[in-house]
Amino acid sequence: MYNEYYLRYKELIETHLTDFLPEIDQQSATLYEAMKYSLTTGGKRIRPVLLLAASEFCGYDINLALPYAAAVEYIHTYSLIHDDLPSMDDDDMRRGKPTNHKVFGEDMAILAGDGLLSSAFEAMMKDMLLYFDNPDKLKCRVRAAYEIAKGAGCKGMVAGQVADIESQGKHCAREYMEYIHLNKTAALIVSSVKAGAYLACGEQDRLEALASYGEAIGLGFQIADDLLDIYGDPAAMGKCAGQDDAHMKCTFPGIYGVEESRQRLAELTDKAIEIMAPFYDEGEFFVAIAEQLALRNK
Amino acid sequence: MYNEYYLRYKELIETHLTDFLPEIDQQSATLYEAMKYSLTTGGKRIRPVLLLAASEFCGYDINLALPYAAAVEYIHTYSLIHDDLPSMDDDDMRRGKPTNHKVFGEDMAILAGDGLLSSAFEAMMKDMLLYFDNPDKLKCRVRAAYEIAKGAGCKGMVAGQVADIESQGKHCAREYMEYIHLNKTAALIVSSVKAGAYLACGEQDRLEALASYGEAIGLGFQIADDLLDIYGDPAAMGKCAGQDDAHMKCTFPGIYGVEESRQRLAELTDKAIEIMAPFYDEGEFFVAIAEQLALRNK
Repeated sequence: MYNEYYLRYKELIETHLTDFLPEIDQQSATLYEAMKYSLTTGGKRIRPVLLLAASEFCGYDINLALPYAAAVEYIHTYSLIHDDLPSMDDDDMRRGKPTNHKVFGEDMAILAGDGLLSSAFEAMMKDMLLYFDNPDKLKCRVRAAYEIAKGAGCKGMVAGQVADIESQGKHCAREYMEYIHLNKTAALIVSSVKAGAYLACGEQDRLEALASYGEAIGLGFQIADDLLDIYGDPAAMGKCAGQDDAHMKCTFPGIYGVEESRQRLAELTDKAIEIMAPFYDEGEFFVAIAEQLALRNK
Repeated sequence: MYNEYYLRYKELIETHLTDFLPEIDQQSATLYEAMKYSLTTGGKRIRPVLLLAASEFCGYDINLALPYAAAVEYIHTYSLIHDDLPSMDDDDMRRGKPTNHKVFGEDMAILAGDGLLSSAFEAMMKDMLLYFDNPDKLKCRVRAAYEIAKGAGCKGMVAGQVADIESQGKHCAREYMEYIHLNKTAALIVSSVKAGAYLACGEQDRLEALASYGEAIGLGFQIADDLLDIYGDPAAMGKCAGQDDAHMKCTFPGIYGVEESRQRLAELTDKAIEIMAPFYDEGEFFVAIAEQLALRNK
């Protein structure tokens, strides 16, 4: 069931992923190429999958949630492009292919990131125009877009990136590391889940469950990432292992050790499962995602 | 009258410019410093001034337009920070002060730009939440934000930047140059004027006049910029002259020569004035702005 559902969401997103980019002019065709290059090099699509699943869990037609699902993937992709730049993590490979700036140059990679971030908001607001005759639905969409903006911004993903850079090579305090993890990765995951529920104008109990669930798997996801960086298979990941250590990054295993990190990941997974279990069959997909994230190898 | 009005708008914006940034955490304090540094190094504030003036022209309380005025200035500022980066225009000075990356490093400058762009949309959407009990006003705000998103994005400012980079050092065709000018500078100016009118739920005739006016001064503004780069006073501009030539940029005087560029600027100024003159006193500020832009020395 899990794989079937995951694939259904993932295929829907990948089929429509570039549909919500503005129609690019011939004079700036390279911009489109650069954005598309990074959008279509695969990835788990975990954020848009969670957004669609949360929408459906709250009784919504997932086709109507697609512009927002695309938006969170545009935002995630822009963050990877900028993160890989020479002045940031200086990564040459991503998902088994050369990084954006290696193919298109640093200037175009910066602009491709800027273009994707702009396009995310443009897509969501263009969609809002379709709901002018239904103010209640319009409000739900504004709430969803605001949630995504917060997760992406200066109290979310960008803050996490800043703290990540600032901490490199310095003594890494526990509070600092948790701040990085909560913001760099978890924030946009939580926002994706919540945005899916908002879009559906979901009921309060489902919204609250999804928000707590998102926080648990968001933090778990980053701990799993840190562990993968130590033990992961480079072939499966499409990038080199040991990068965190090379960059002297402030990681969960770096502070708590591998065993305690695994323990914490298991606790977060259990917590996520516990939150969604009361919804029985309807929560099954979310339970399975939590289990899979703990076991993933890429 | 003109100076008094301009100052009134400019002071209002500058007083409240950082009010709409999210409250930054202590762990990412440098992000706030970097964003604030570029936001507060002055500038003409022409985009937010036009937005507020357009709102007022359409009968609106300009205090209610401030989050959107701040948003266009955040977007303009992010574009300058990214544009100045070593892999882009590689500028060391801006408005008489070292550029963002010279002070905070390339990585932080990229993130400060990302943070400002995110904050622009976050500010607008946070403001929308205040209008949930008034769907008509909410819709006007969604329209305004969408207009700004389009002006900033892949069919607007980002497209202009891409074309600008792509054209450097190549043969510069007329159509290409006009595309760069229309998108790189004019697009966000047009969007600012239109957004001001939308916010006010302005009447159709005023909206149309402002849109045409914005196009004329937007293009005129960039031609004036190109001319300043040749003849401008570095002390007044706070940056070196001759930069376009040094970067082999595709400029208006580069193609049409100085005399024809001055002629075109004068035509655009006349056109802008002609559009706003029928509104008598109410259009006076816009007429004066058009005249001043043609005469400016920085």
